Amino acid sequence: MGSLGDITLENNNVMCPPNPLDPEEFRRQGHMMVDFIADYYHDVDKYPVLSQVSPGYLRDLLPDSAPNHAEPIEAILQDVRNHIVPGITHWQSPNYFAYFPSSGSVAGFLGEMLSVGFNVVGFNWMSSPAATELETIVMDWLGKMLSLPKPFLFSGGGGGVLQGTTCEGILCTVTAARDKVLNKIGRDRIGDLVIYSSDQTHCALKKAAQIAGIRPDNIRALPTRQRDAFGLCPETLRSALAADVSEGLVPLYLCATVGTTSSTAVDPLRGLCEVAAEHDIWVHVDAAYAGSACICPEFRHFIDGVENASSFSFNAHKWFFTTLDCCCLWVKEPQHLVNALSTNPEYLRNKATESKKVVDFKDWQIALSRRFRALKLWMVLRSYGVANLRNFIRSHVNMAELFEGFVAKDERFEVVVPRNFAMVCFRLLPPLGSRSARDGGLETANAINKRLLDAMNATGKIYVTHAVVGGVYIIRFAVGASLTEERHVRSAWSLVEEQAEALLAELEVQAALQEKAEAGLTEFNVHAAMQEQAGQAVHA
Amino acid sequence: MGSLGDITLENNNVMCPPNPLDPEEFRRQGHMMVDFIADYYHDVDKYPVLSQVSPGYLRDLLPDSAPNHAEPIEAILQDVRNHIVPGITHWQSPNYFAYFPSSGSVAGFLGEMLSVGFNVVGFNWMSSPAATELETIVMDWLGKMLSLPKPFLFSGGGGGVLQGTTCEGILCTVTAARDKVLNKIGRDRIGDLVIYSSDQTHCALKKAAQIAGIRPDNIRALPTRQRDAFGLCPETLRSALAADVSEGLVPLYLCATVGTTSSTAVDPLRGLCEVAAEHDIWVHVDAAYAGSACICPEFRHFIDGVENASSFSFNAHKWFFTTLDCCCLWVKEPQHLVNALSTNPEYLRNKATESKKVVDFKDWQIALSRRFRALKLWMVLRSYGVANLRNFIRSHVNMAELFEGFVAKDERFEVVVPRNFAMVCFRLLPPLGSRSARDGGLETANAINKRLLDAMNATGKIYVTHAVVGGVYIIRFAVGASLTEERHVRSAWSLVEEQAEALLAELEVQAALQEKAEAGLTEFNVHAAMQEQAGQAVHA
Repeated sequence: MGSLGDITLENNNVMCPPNPLDPEEFRRQGHMMVDFIADYYHDVDKYPVLSQVSPGYLRDLLPDSAPNHAEPIEAILQDVRNHIVPGITHWQSPNYFAYFPSSGSVAGFLGEMLSVGFNVVGFNWMSSPAATELETIVMDWLGKMLSLPKPFLFSGGGGGVLQGTTCEGILCTVTAARDKVLNKIGRDRIGDLVIYSSDQTHCALKKAAQIAGIRPDNIRALPTRQRDAFGLCPETLRSALAADVSEGLVPLYLCATVGTTSSTAVDPLRGLCEVAAEHDIWVHVDAAYAGSACICPEFRHFIDGVENASSFSFNAHKWFFTTLDCCCLWVKEPQHLVNALSTNPEYLRNKATESKKVVDFKDWQIALSRRFRALKLWMVLRSYGVANLRNFIRSHVNMAELFEGFVAKDERFEVVVPRNFAMVCFRLLPPLGSRSARDGGLETANAINKRLLDAMNATGKIYVTHAVVGGVYIIRFAVGASLTEERHVRSAWSLVEEQAEALLAELEVQAALQEKAEAGLTEFNVHAAMQEQAGQAVHA
Repeated sequence: MGSLGDITLENNNVMCPPNPLDPEEFRRQGHMMVDFIADYYHDVDKYPVLSQVSPGYLRDLLPDSAPNHAEPIEAILQDVRNHIVPGITHWQSPNYFAYFPSSGSVAGFLGEMLSVGFNVVGFNWMSSPAATELETIVMDWLGKMLSLPKPFLFSGGGGGVLQGTTCEGILCTVTAARDKVLNKIGRDRIGDLVIYSSDQTHCALKKAAQIAGIRPDNIRALPTRQRDAFGLCPETLRSALAADVSEGLVPLYLCATVGTTSSTAVDPLRGLCEVAAEHDIWVHVDAAYAGSACICPEFRHFIDGVENASSFSFNAHKWFFTTLDCCCLWVKEPQHLVNALSTNPEYLRNKATESKKVVDFKDWQIALSRRFRALKLWMVLRSYGVANLRNFIRSHVNMAELFEGFVAKDERFEVVVPRNFAMVCFRLLPPLGSRSARDGGLETANAINKRLLDAMNATGKIYVTHAVVGGVYIIRFAVGASLTEERHVRSAWSLVEEQAEALLAELEVQAALQEKAEAGLTEFNVHAAMQEQAGQAVHA
């Protein structure tokens, strides 16, 4: 049972159990877990990337209630291997190209270990000064790496804070903006406040705005166009603002995106901020994914104009080698966050706070309690250094470029929108026949690409996800998992080709047989013939 | 520089840096970190519990910007030792008795390691089925351990979800309740909604309610009385509801607390739920701290009546050996959360969701992204088992009882409110002379206890915090740090006695000299004489 088992005396009285934080037991089990996870990374490319389990699989494998007695770590790790790992979608796999990356790293992991080890609850400075101070320091470091204008840094009167996710960051800034305005025009007018974004903006905005009590029908998703590469046109914003003002509504907040989730589109910050300034509205720049790239001088231009925004955020847990969760948010005027989010209960009163020489981050976020997240970011920055971090990013971009080249060279495919960062949006072109349909074969093409995506993911060899942009179903190929190397990208392309060939062959057979079917074949025969031919195509 | 250094070729071209998630590097550094943290736990009682650094200490010790080149883990750990540890308030110290505990454990740490290792982004079932399924399973396990009524369990049509903190849990339920009502009476009436709590309720409620757009002046903190042990009297609630209804306002939500932060007071759930039912309002039970104790049959009665509440939460990261953050929230009707918080962007569409056979936890919380928190809770439950967990809790309660006994036996002190769990609220009684003052010496007593608290914390030997209840400044002595043993509690009491004696001696001298001063002594002499005598008292 190991030393964690409860110790039963001869007379069956249960002794006080061993201390749950015994340092030597910590050491013994900690080393076991390090080896377990190191082995996992070593073997992760052998698992199906997308978990292939069915809903409810785990309830059948585990007991109905918690055990009464202690179980040894060995037994638990065995269950992790047998029951949990099959239900994991392996975001750390080198063959993971879905959504956006969740790029782990040794340094990020170690920083998290330290943070969990200290396990401080850093609501204010006093509760653990290092937690607050390191956060202010790394947020300034990172702000400088991004060449954020000085007013966003602590050293320039603004400041950065680590949130869990972008959704939380947006909720905090919406709340700050909301109260800033309502304190002027009166609480009763909450129903008049309007929030702006494009139809490409992440749904986190809508969710956050609704939580903050903004009327759902006052959340505008303004249309974008393919010819603007799905960026929000400033003129579109200007018209929307004018229309709302003429209705007596109060423009509040614009969320501009650098690197949308669907297609990594970029809203033109400079133009949008100019228009926003005419109405004095809060502009938040959501660079959740693409912010990481902006530490490279060659990508920095994507956030040109940020100097006129009110706040800026990016997720270090996406593509910056810092484990989930770690959203970096900078604001020019932290006082608006504090005004909206501060609480000062008696039990937290302390001299440091009253001296006004310290930051109490509980007043910059939703929750009061907060983890010491700065440690992992600090360890990432120091363990790799700016030069390596830029090179990691560049190597992912180069691999995406390689993949884009494969797509571009193959006339059966197309790159649907221009690649900005390390994600390629592509699709299989519909068979020529269908392109003459009224919608140019769009419906057929979308259905085919959905089938292609499902077929690729069902192999377990890679995992990719989709989006629909301007009505077009696209396959998103996002490079960025830390373990991905060029050979994985090459294999992924081979799989795309192989699955596409099988699918196209199947479609051809289907079309041919359809004609025959119309000439009298039974459905059973069509199906059998299709399967036979499809099998040949795969093995060809 | 270790193998993480960037590798410079002879011609000064920088090669692609080593992979940031290299399994063997992970193993090497992971083992180092395990030993680092094990050593920290071994030595943690040697550090001042409350960090003694001054505001701004760290900025002077660290560079102004991130390093350009990689730094070896050895150098970083050295900086953790030299620069970070002095700025840590050691929540894991056995001499930590402040706020509420943040009780770490080997199992909780290991669970977090696994979660960070997989680093999945579990927004929906599909993105990592094990993350969602394990969460539903452990929430049912834990619900059964608490004897929560079946309607709160997945197996009974309700369900539990892991939030970061109570503040988030309250925000989600307030938002759910708000939208349920506004969908009936119209969005325009958001300004009419009223939220109820007692004057002892945690400020998380006020914060969450304000974020959700509830008018600040519609958030009621109803008065409590010492004779009700600071629990909210149902009749007080009834009157408040009637008054608001007669004003045309709409009662929305009651937050009842089991184990308040100031004094672990308990609101009477059964009576409050009866009154709340008359107005069909949402009742949330916040048992952030005391919920843990309710896994012991002898404490379960504190949540009797929960069957008539709408939601219930407790923080496993406080006193349940699960590292921050981990708030367990159960609701009877998850659909209200989903109605208020769901988002269904195209890029997350998938068959499992559409089959309606799975839970997508993104719709039960603020953020979309979520960590695999269930692992740590599962590991805690399995590694210790229900029997040991109850015994851990009981051993803390027993230690608090021991301390309470010390206080009760010493006539210079009093236990201010009855102890319910593992926290003792006590104070040093004011010197007899001051008790004849108009406020019964309250002001003097409060000032003395504040001085006593500061003096104790300045020694670095223990850390305790305060609250003010019914106007009385109390010292809160919360047992629950995992490493605390009886000897630490005995030492803590000795320190209380020692510091109190010094303070009382000083006060006596002060009073005596005050008289003399009035008889003509210079201020300088008073001060010098005081210091001399105080020194003697300490060394006596």
